[in-house]
Amino acid sequence: MSDPEHLDTVRKFVSQEILGRETHLDSLADAPLALYERFAGTGLMNWWVPEEHGGLGLGLEDSVRIVSELAYGDAGVAFTLFLPILTTSMVSWYGGTELKEKYLGRLVAQRGFCATLGSEHEAGSELAKISTMVRRDGESLVLDGTKAFSTSTDFAQFLVVITRSADDPGQYLAVTVPRDTPGLRVDKRWDVIGLRASATYQVSFVDCRVPSDHALNGNGLRLLEIGLNASRILIAATALGVARRIRDLCMEYARTKSLRGAPLVKDAVFVGRLGQFEMQIEVMATQCLAAARTYDATAARPDAARTLLRQGAQKSALAAKMFCGQTAWQIASAASEMFGGLGYTHEMPIGKLLRDVRHASIIEGGDDVLRDLVFQRFVVPTAKRT
Amino acid sequence: MSDPEHLDTVRKFVSQEILGRETHLDSLADAPLALYERFAGTGLMNWWVPEEHGGLGLGLEDSVRIVSELAYGDAGVAFTLFLPILTTSMVSWYGGTELKEKYLGRLVAQRGFCATLGSEHEAGSELAKISTMVRRDGESLVLDGTKAFSTSTDFAQFLVVITRSADDPGQYLAVTVPRDTPGLRVDKRWDVIGLRASATYQVSFVDCRVPSDHALNGNGLRLLEIGLNASRILIAATALGVARRIRDLCMEYARTKSLRGAPLVKDAVFVGRLGQFEMQIEVMATQCLAAARTYDATAARPDAARTLLRQGAQKSALAAKMFCGQTAWQIASAASEMFGGLGYTHEMPIGKLLRDVRHASIIEGGDDVLRDLVFQRFVVPTAKRT
Amino acid sequence: MSDPEHLDTVRKFVSQEILGRETHLDSLADAPLALYERFAGTGLMNWWVPEEHGGLGLGLEDSVRIVSELAYGDAGVAFTLFLPILTTSMVSWYGGTELKEKYLGRLVAQRGFCATLGSEHEAGSELAKISTMVRRDGESLVLDGTKAFSTSTDFAQFLVVITRSADDPGQYLAVTVPRDTPGLRVDKRWDVIGLRASATYQVSFVDCRVPSDHALNGNGLRLLEIGLNASRILIAATALGVARRIRDLCMEYARTKSLRGAPLVKDAVFVGRLGQFEMQIEVMATQCLAAARTYDATAARPDAARTLLRQGAQKSALAAKMFCGQTAWQIASAASEMFGGLGYTHEMPIGKLLRDVRHASIIEGGDDVLRDLVFQRFVVPTAKRT
Amino acid sequence: MSDPEHLDTVRKFVSQEILGRETHLDSLADAPLALYERFAGTGLMNWWVPEEHGGLGLGLEDSVRIVSELAYGDAGVAFTLFLPILTTSMVSWYGGTELKEKYLGRLVAQRGFCATLGSEHEAGSELAKISTMVRRDGESLVLDGTKAFSTSTDFAQFLVVITRSADDPGQYLAVTVPRDTPGLRVDKRWDVIGLRASATYQVSFVDCRVPSDHALNGNGLRLLEIGLNASRILIAATALGVARRIRDLCMEYARTKSLRGAPLVKDAVFVGRLGQFEMQIEVMATQCLAAARTYDATAARPDAARTLLRQGAQKSALAAKMFCGQTAWQIASAASEMFGGLGYTHEMPIGKLLRDVRHASIIEGGDDVLRDLVFQRFVVPTAKRT
Repeated sequence: MSDPEHLDTVRKFVSQEILGRETHLDSLADAPLALYERFAGTGLMNWWVPEEHGGLGLGLEDSVRIVSELAYGDAGVAFTLFLPILTTSMVSWYGGTELKEKYLGRLVAQRGFCATLGSEHEAGSELAKISTMVRRDGESLVLDGTKAFSTSTDFAQFLVVITRSADDPGQYLAVTVPRDTPGLRVDKRWDVIGLRASATYQVSFVDCRVPSDHALNGNGLRLLEIGLNASRILIAATALGVARRIRDLCMEYARTKSLRGAPLVKDAVFVGRLGQFEMQIEVMATQCLAAARTYDATAARPDAARTLLRQGAQKSALAAKMFCGQTAWQIASAASEMFGGLGYTHEMPIGKLLRDVRHASIIEGGDDVLRDLVFQRFVVPTAKRT
Repeated sequence: MSDPEHLDTVRKFVSQEILGRETHLDSLADAPLALYERFAGTGLMNWWVPEEHGGLGLGLEDSVRIVSELAYGDAGVAFTLFLPILTTSMVSWYGGTELKEKYLGRLVAQRGFCATLGSEHEAGSELAKISTMVRRDGESLVLDGTKAFSTSTDFAQFLVVITRSADDPGQYLAVTVPRDTPGLRVDKRWDVIGLRASATYQVSFVDCRVPSDHALNGNGLRLLEIGLNASRILIAATALGVARRIRDLCMEYARTKSLRGAPLVKDAVFVGRLGQFEMQIEVMATQCLAAARTYDATAARPDAARTLLRQGAQKSALAAKMFCGQTAWQIASAASEMFGGLGYTHEMPIGKLLRDVRHASIIEGGDDVLRDLVFQRFVVPTAKRT
Repeated sequence: MSDPEHLDTVRKFVSQEILGRETHLDSLADAPLALYERFAGTGLMNWWVPEEHGGLGLGLEDSVRIVSELAYGDAGVAFTLFLPILTTSMVSWYGGTELKEKYLGRLVAQRGFCATLGSEHEAGSELAKISTMVRRDGESLVLDGTKAFSTSTDFAQFLVVITRSADDPGQYLAVTVPRDTPGLRVDKRWDVIGLRASATYQVSFVDCRVPSDHALNGNGLRLLEIGLNASRILIAATALGVARRIRDLCMEYARTKSLRGAPLVKDAVFVGRLGQFEMQIEVMATQCLAAARTYDATAARPDAARTLLRQGAQKSALAAKMFCGQTAWQIASAASEMFGGLGYTHEMPIGKLLRDVRHASIIEGGDDVLRDLVFQRFVVPTAKRT
Repeated sequence: MSDPEHLDTVRKFVSQEILGRETHLDSLADAPLALYERFAGTGLMNWWVPEEHGGLGLGLEDSVRIVSELAYGDAGVAFTLFLPILTTSMVSWYGGTELKEKYLGRLVAQRGFCATLGSEHEAGSELAKISTMVRRDGESLVLDGTKAFSTSTDFAQFLVVITRSADDPGQYLAVTVPRDTPGLRVDKRWDVIGLRASATYQVSFVDCRVPSDHALNGNGLRLLEIGLNASRILIAATALGVARRIRDLCMEYARTKSLRGAPLVKDAVFVGRLGQFEMQIEVMATQCLAAARTYDATAARPDAARTLLRQGAQKSALAAKMFCGQTAWQIASAASEMFGGLGYTHEMPIGKLLRDVRHASIIEGGDDVLRDLVFQRFVVPTAKRT
């Protein structure tokens, strides 16, 4: 089965625009908006947005392949390009008709970004403890609070902000906020250790007002959990892409290197390590694709929005993220010892790949948090065990 | 999607005939033929044999589920019941019409066993070095040599023996030999450390004669490699079944146990470990099923036999076996510390499960051998990388 | 520096009496008392008992070397022979003058065994929850309750039983009980998964009376903790001995085996694995010896008993047990894949070694328990951090 | 036993001059020579140089403690400050009387640096393949070639360069070269991924002449191997220092953080992880100190130089480096997931510590190289096994 055309497009983009530019992408310079323009030029920007909103409507299985290719080039670029799916999936399932037409339509038309704002300093992984509040004031919703980590917010068209109801603190709302709303302030950009082509911000809201139809329908925490299904699978696909890059880097190095008079590819230790990598990469790919197919099957149901509200976090998505994060870290750790002293310099990208891939076990739920979630949701209820 | 009926049958069999009989099954008593009779009574014996030979023709995806359930009960029983697939798949693809009608037909009719004899002491994992020879003598093929490990041979109806041609030592033949052929001797049964419900023998051939149409068509080593695709996936499924059993055992134990005044299921360390197990089990299941689907797709092709000769070892099957063997061992190792002192006694089956599951990384190719195979076949040729 | 004479004696004993008898020692036959007689014949029985009680007074550093040699032969034999140190160290530091003269003197004279009874089913690792009670009745102490795991009790001369005071449930007593005391019953011997040359029993006390001077001085739980310092270090030394045996087993195997036309010792994967084993064994030995020297230094102090009451568990002893248990398991796991199919049979002792060495991470405190102990005692108090 | 005074001095230096300056030290700015001036101001510069050359003559056991403290602050600073020991130990054992008086005396007097130049691009870990040549020309030795990695060379007083004899290519010479010798060129400084306070250079020699008494006595490769004993132990001590810093960082973080309504230090998962860290740190410290004591004992022998020529690489030094490198990486990996999203930013030093500590498994012999060395030297000769 030959690969679809869009995958060739992505590979060409990676090869022409990303490979060899690692040093710049790793420099924490301004977010590489010109690069994203060029990606938009391929017609693939926000490739997953449903056709009814003018998008290409590619499924998550396609997305896994696209993201794996992008991350093969640069994980930060991949992350920036797929992360809007977290926002758009919440909006397209739980937004009012007008809201989604307006925001998703414009997103597609202008090939822009959007962002979700969930985590806060104090709350950490316990989102129920967030303190960004929303209150009703006539026809408006008014937001106040600070969000710790939000990627691409500064250059996004609109955000979805997870908030707590000032009127009923047990209630959470996901509120759509245009980027240029007064009272929204980007406090700072974080100096991150990896994914440095992406830009993650701390953002504050002070008396920030939006029309009341900008709230999505449903419990904000639940909607976020649902939105994370796609982005967690694509974080896993990012780890997959980095692992594939590392494998190829090892093979390139081995062609030029000899050990005890024979090429490195004849060394049994090298062979064993690469055989193990390939096995692990195969399993990573399998899990990402399986989780994506499950996601696509649910998304294709006429009652997808309702089904997802009932299901919440998708088990195979959690497994994909945890597994690929852990496994890619093993691969990166082992590989970082395979290039001799050169591997400890920036002559080789392995140091960058090591830092980049670390994110997969940290963001959108560290493994401790996800292990707990898997246990409570899928082990305690006997029937949900695999 | 509700489980198919045959899966309920298997679960009932496991629950009625296996669970609680671990001590006996672990005793290396005579092979539990009466138990296998009762399994045959369910109508599921050799469930995969094609309908054209009178079998049920269930696919490998079904087989993964069946084997995972059987191994949940006892890995040795599971191994004994699925292992004939290695033999029958070689015969059904590469045997002459008469040969397969005769042997596969009788196997189904009599609900019997068959066995494959590959490995030898000296050759170890390097099958090209085997010294069991076959020579042509008129219309007969004559076998001489000793095979180290062969499961179920003693009570099998027929065997497929991998041999080297005395006439052309670079040629290998897979030869069908009825169990009662003169010159075939079962030397001894091995005292194995796990899978003790199964029975593995050393077998000798001295001037052992079969008709010349009993050779399968094709290079014997290649046919064995092809036959191993199915059994390696089912070894992986065995590891999956054992891992599922271990998880449930931990949960049962935790219900009865308290730590610092709270039930063990509230202990964050226990929760984290079980969450990790479940994630790993999910990935194991995904990989087994994906490999099985790939196998089924190839098997469904009209040119399956030819395609397989060209493809040889299936990448996803190798990955399934390596991954599930490694991961189940991690799970069993961690779990074996979770039951306190009781876990070091035979009051708990964890000691048996630890020994049982060890086989998955040892038989039908240790991981070092498979890593090398994966490297040579799927990393060196750039296009075959995942 | 040449090894001391007693170490040669031990090596000769192992080579003449143990090596090659693994199958018998692993059979859970009656405890091999005749073998222990022969060990007693070397004059080394209870080699650590102080000279004032007629013993040899060898230190714990010597003990580490002796136990490593014994465990090289059989871990169950090693365990049985060193475990009385747990009992004798409590008695010699905290017993009354008469009590220790009587019991330690006789132990040395008759070259016998003694045992400690701590753990109980319900209490598990939380010894404060034990329910074996002791009450004062005139000049007697009366014991009632059941102890889950106690090694060698059946053929011991005397026991030290950790009990809770019926009069003051917050108080714990360590009580010396002669083996033949009425009311003491050996309920059963456990069928253990490893260390099968040793014999571990469940023991009950019903109205079991001893003179009141048979209580040791001090909090029974604290005394047990102090006694465990020596035995935990020697459990670590047992793991060390097993690891050394595994290494040598791999090297012996490699001499007879070839891979791709070269001896296995030329295979880079084998070399790398054995180099890693040797490094780990070196670190294990270093930690055992360092912990033993710290122990010996404390024991040599005139105020040793008081110092130990203040110090309790020795940090380096805990580290030795945890580290050697974990590392020996890694070595045994890796090695169990290195012998091909033969390693899955009882032709090779690797299966036994795997089961034997598992105990080091389970008995006398599983790693979860010890990690918690290390944290509370040596991380929370900043000054005690390494 | 109270710590010696010099250790307090080091701790004070770290606390006043290093802690809190991580960002700057990590910036790859010019080597922080002013900082080293201030360290020299404590009187501890090159603390190990023998008293006969005007040094303090502190032993390697002291050095382990000093380096662990320095690395607690910054691993790059620690590395820079201890690395001259590699050079001075070669010179003081194998240099002519005049040579060592001149160079070691001046080093102490001027509190300067010196450097060793061993590794080359092509040769990699196989030093026998180096191509930096030395030839005799009258009373001069003439060097030609390029050395890949050499730390501190640019601001060193003198270097020791490992070369191959142009006259006899099987012979290797270690040649002392003053920094300002014509023909010595510092090609570039490497942009390294960690230890960024240190400065590592590529250095070329073109017709670079020194007097012929500047060659050390003995096979240059062997001398280098001997010199590496000290620096490998101190690389291990660096990993120890980083691990201790990580542990303390986790504890500081835990004081400010709560999880499910309780402080993080009450969370069983956190407790278990820190308990494991502390155990590992204890074992790391034990191994470093034991290796250092062995080193000091050899160094104290009157025939140290000859003994070392015979012994070459010290087993416990190799074990220390490998073990501490591997273990510190495990600790850093686990810890890097423990700070939530903040741990993925430069607000926390964990990202830097992860990069810094990676060096311990890469430089002065990667683990694959050292595993091979341990195997050939200490496993193959039966008597040298632990």
